[in-house]
Amino acid sequence: MEYRGQLFVLSGPSGAGKSTLRERIRKRVSELWYSVSCTTRAPRAGEIDGEDYSFVSMDAFLAMVKARGFLEWAQVHGHYYGTPREQVVSSLENGRDVLLEIDVQGARQVKIHLPQACFIFVLPPDVATLKKRLRRRGTEDDSGMKIRLDRATREMAEAPWYDYLVINDDLERASEELAAVIRANRCRAAAVLPRVLDLVRPPPLS
Amino acid sequence: MEYRGQLFVLSGPSGAGKSTLRERIRKRVSELWYSVSCTTRAPRAGEIDGEDYSFVSMDAFLAMVKARGFLEWAQVHGHYYGTPREQVVSSLENGRDVLLEIDVQGARQVKIHLPQACFIFVLPPDVATLKKRLRRRGTEDDSGMKIRLDRATREMAEAPWYDYLVINDDLERASEELAAVIRANRCRAAAVLPRVLDLVRPPPLS
Repeated sequence: MEYRGQLFVLSGPSGAGKSTLRERIRKRVSELWYSVSCTTRAPRAGEIDGEDYSFVSMDAFLAMVKARGFLEWAQVHGHYYGTPREQVVSSLENGRDVLLEIDVQGARQVKIHLPQACFIFVLPPDVATLKKRLRRRGTEDDSGMKIRLDRATREMAEAPWYDYLVINDDLERASEELAAVIRANRCRAAAVLPRVLDLVRPPPLS
Repeated sequence: MEYRGQLFVLSGPSGAGKSTLRERIRKRVSELWYSVSCTTRAPRAGEIDGEDYSFVSMDAFLAMVKARGFLEWAQVHGHYYGTPREQVVSSLENGRDVLLEIDVQGARQVKIHLPQACFIFVLPPDVATLKKRLRRRGTEDDSGMKIRLDRATREMAEAPWYDYLVINDDLERASEELAAVIRANRCRAAAVLPRVLDLVRPPPLS
């Protein structure tokens, strides 16, 4: 089904900087609706319920899975994350563009159900930077770190099927690139034509 | 043939504001090479030979057509315009992105020979604005004006096959959109993958 709004899926491995990029893009791009994911993990310092995530219990999460209430959901490092379907679909139907920031498993599910979405993959500049970012985040010992790194490596192998790749070496440049991808997609012929039919109508055959 | 650089083709009817947009984009987007077209028409006030156009004689132009020296060429309102092939192709081969600002006939010829190029169509906001811009430019009487308007109408009917449509109602916004299209195309997976092969290589089967 073709919606009036466009869906942008921002994904990539943990440690690539997806959330920070999403925050930046809020300020740069207007008229973009941000879907708030549900998660069973505890809030990190500074995270606000209903804004960064909806923090829910495991029971509430599983009930929503059973009711097919998620557009996509995934388990990442022992915690569950999911995108409530209804708000996304009704926004797109009403012509609003939507940005999802989700993990790679979730992006695959969206690709199956909404293949016309625009898929953007955020990459760290190199493996050394990725390791540093994962270490800063994790509280684990070396084996925990190895699990995170192995997972990120498998996740990065998904990059080739995405529409756009953004290398997050410089946050300012990366967020400019992400903004450009969204703006450019809004200029695609398929998106603009409905507004200019009077101009581009073929002249009568003579 | 796939080149290392990307070709951007900026086209649209006379009076849409292509040249002004091209000027603006020079300042906004780096590492973009501008092809200078040849023309048999006389320079307008302020135009510089070798920068805005290469102003050539009809004989020189026709000799170059005969030698297949043009990537595209067209006759518009009695004057000839053409894009020298060699510089464009060698820039693309060397990995430089190239911007062509050409008329709609020329864009069709490029579409045949280089279908992988990115085609961007500039539209006036409405017919009234187009008329005003054509009137300002032309020195003709009413019948000359009708010819220009009929031509622009036929040209605008080509818009649907382009990749992107930019409505030039506000020059600042239009040039931002054009810049976004170029930046976004530089982030396409096909363009970025060669630089990140080490990151996205699939892990060994286990």
